[in-house]
Amino acid sequence: MMSSTSVPKGTRDFLPDQMSGRKFLLNLLEELFQRHAFLPIETPSMEKIDTLLGKYGEEGDRLIFKVLNRGDRLSRALSSICSQSDIAVKETNSLADAALRYDLTIPFARFISQHRNDLHFPFKRYQIQPVWRADRPQKGRYREFVQCDVDIIGSSSILNELELIQITGEAFSSLGLSDVIVKINHRKLLEGIVTETGTNVPFQKITIVLDKWEKIGLEAVKNELSQAGMKEKEIEVLIRYVHQNTSINSIQTLPSNQMIEAGCSELEQILDWADKYCKVKVELDLKLARGLDYYTGIIIEAIHPEFGSSILGGGRYDNLTGMFGLPGVSGVGISFGADRIYDLLSLKRLLPESPFNRKSVLILNLGAEPEWMIRAASLIRESDAVADIYPDESKLKKQMKFANDKGFDFVVFMGAKERSEGTLKIRNMQSGDELELKSDELSTFFKK
Amino acid sequence: MMSSTSVPKGTRDFLPDQMSGRKFLLNLLEELFQRHAFLPIETPSMEKIDTLLGKYGEEGDRLIFKVLNRGDRLSRALSSICSQSDIAVKETNSLADAALRYDLTIPFARFISQHRNDLHFPFKRYQIQPVWRADRPQKGRYREFVQCDVDIIGSSSILNELELIQITGEAFSSLGLSDVIVKINHRKLLEGIVTETGTNVPFQKITIVLDKWEKIGLEAVKNELSQAGMKEKEIEVLIRYVHQNTSINSIQTLPSNQMIEAGCSELEQILDWADKYCKVKVELDLKLARGLDYYTGIIIEAIHPEFGSSILGGGRYDNLTGMFGLPGVSGVGISFGADRIYDLLSLKRLLPESPFNRKSVLILNLGAEPEWMIRAASLIRESDAVADIYPDESKLKKQMKFANDKGFDFVVFMGAKERSEGTLKIRNMQSGDELELKSDELSTFFKK
Repeated sequence: MMSSTSVPKGTRDFLPDQMSGRKFLLNLLEELFQRHAFLPIETPSMEKIDTLLGKYGEEGDRLIFKVLNRGDRLSRALSSICSQSDIAVKETNSLADAALRYDLTIPFARFISQHRNDLHFPFKRYQIQPVWRADRPQKGRYREFVQCDVDIIGSSSILNELELIQITGEAFSSLGLSDVIVKINHRKLLEGIVTETGTNVPFQKITIVLDKWEKIGLEAVKNELSQAGMKEKEIEVLIRYVHQNTSINSIQTLPSNQMIEAGCSELEQILDWADKYCKVKVELDLKLARGLDYYTGIIIEAIHPEFGSSILGGGRYDNLTGMFGLPGVSGVGISFGADRIYDLLSLKRLLPESPFNRKSVLILNLGAEPEWMIRAASLIRESDAVADIYPDESKLKKQMKFANDKGFDFVVFMGAKERSEGTLKIRNMQSGDELELKSDELSTFFKK
Repeated sequence: MMSSTSVPKGTRDFLPDQMSGRKFLLNLLEELFQRHAFLPIETPSMEKIDTLLGKYGEEGDRLIFKVLNRGDRLSRALSSICSQSDIAVKETNSLADAALRYDLTIPFARFISQHRNDLHFPFKRYQIQPVWRADRPQKGRYREFVQCDVDIIGSSSILNELELIQITGEAFSSLGLSDVIVKINHRKLLEGIVTETGTNVPFQKITIVLDKWEKIGLEAVKNELSQAGMKEKEIEVLIRYVHQNTSINSIQTLPSNQMIEAGCSELEQILDWADKYCKVKVELDLKLARGLDYYTGIIIEAIHPEFGSSILGGGRYDNLTGMFGLPGVSGVGISFGADRIYDLLSLKRLLPESPFNRKSVLILNLGAEPEWMIRAASLIRESDAVADIYPDESKLKKQMKFANDKGFDFVVFMGAKERSEGTLKIRNMQSGDELELKSDELSTFFKK
């Protein structure tokens, strides 16, 4: 049977040209994380199913790719399910004993709890791995995508928040994305404001609605808040406080309670430091809420004016490892959305064009002794350049087209004339310049 | 509910110390592949289920992790299955529409067929990604592990085989594993020998038995060949030809037929070149068979005397892309077993010890102005060293223990005395040497 050649919905192949851009981006981020003393970790692609379920809300549970049980377990699960008349999707959890990770944060919380005795706290880790969501695929939204996370666990100092904003600024300015804006807010400040409205609606429900503001607009937010049970008066107060206040001075006109004060004082300090020490514009945005439940302090999001969705997000969480039996450990982290940042860099033509990451040379195969080509290639590689031998003795035109299409910087000829003279000819593919050399000069030539 | 903190059977977390060793290994291989003009590609972790099923034999089908269908598809699959009385594992294929990749070769064949018009042939790719097998986990055998594949597609020149053996030799000698032996054989030669025995048993069945020789021994091989239907006389001839012949000279005493001659001439050429141009011992091993069906020419395996299982395998395949609608494309490839090579390097203490990949500095937090520490860290990072600020003002002893445990090369003090004098103190954690500096000398100091 002929097999289909396409990939599952929402997943992608990466061809060499795309890979060189992706590697450029991921290497730049990795270098930066390393200079800040973050250490790498990796966690398995699959987690036990109970590690992931119930951590991302109902929507999250629905979007997790589950891995089918095998052998006896599967037969047992099937017979137990089939004896019931109504097979709900929820009950099929017994069909899968593992699932693909949905983000890098919950696996990291599980990791910290499991390896607490082997780690030195405060622990700074970075992690660059794919994650999976069974979402409806669309532009900029994939079912498999890479996240680049940096987190600091085990310290409540806001020097940590500053460092993460420094990394954000350094990354986007190195990538040539100087228009990026970092928005920050504070969950405590937001909770303090909600308290002032006098509402009975849980804070969590309100943040989920506020989080959609940029997407759905003010009127829809008001509508949804009302549907969530907030009174018109309460909504009005909330909107008044969070809508226009975007400078630290205007916050100071807010009513005062303990949470508002705690939030304000951290935000003031961070905004002052960020202004002096971060290579990025940092703005207060009291509307910023972030959808996830676990944030408890400063929250962060980065946007680019030409790109709808956010390209980085994060914040402080006080008890993320609690659900894995390690309560009371504060942490703060951010996550770069590598696929969206790649799409943005690609759109703005900010990625390197050559697939090779150093000087590259193709040795043409024009009937010279194979052993001569083998030796020449070794000499070139010793100089740290890329060397390739065209493996078949094809027509010159075909070989030159290959060198051109593939983006080699130089080709090396050794035809009949060169052979009789014991020389070889090098052509610069960009300039067309040609040069005669002796074999043993190859290594020195490409070292230059 | 408290969530479990362990990972699925056969999968592993990688802590920073392990990651630094893994990165060392994977970066070394990647650099090497790049110097040989291989280009990187990546394929999705999941493939459509029909891309993978039927490609690895019955055993392979059983070992593939399948991803559960979602929503309506799942309900439909369940009701169709449950109406049958006997639920066999095979029928549960309708429960999953995707599966995790089992190796990097079949996804690559699918990739080549799908993107044939966007690639320049001969196409050299490398691919370093995890694969999954639902195997019984044991020492050195994981359910999730990383493969490092290099393949050349679209040329039948044995210059390609030579290049792959060169890469093998260079990789293992750079890693300090000079005891590695590369074993080679030729599927055509082996098939020619089987023809000479006069047996009716299919060649494929015989190679599967021969492939187990190193593991199960000669007597068990004879037994299994007999069970496969070979007559005693045929087995005797086969064993006599393949057992003792390990030099190219002894091959020449083999009976002659077209397949034997074709195999011999390629092996002779490769052994001669390998002797001159490869940094590894290459041996002929007529017992070498490789389990997979798709090999058609030279086959390769690398072993280390202190390690049971093979740490690299590969060979030439003439029609791997045929099942995806692109027949007649010859290719040759090898796959480094990164997890096994890592285990071997770790056993022989050949991995770097520091988790940091450059000079590393911890700025102690002893009550100096935070802004002073922030500036000092920036200066150090500009010199390309790793810089970290201990984020909380803890006791000196605790901070020094942290610096020591985590492996920092230097610590920087700015206590009361230094503050009043406008200096700072640097201690080399290895030698214990101390030095006084002014802040603005930091960057120059660590550049050295």
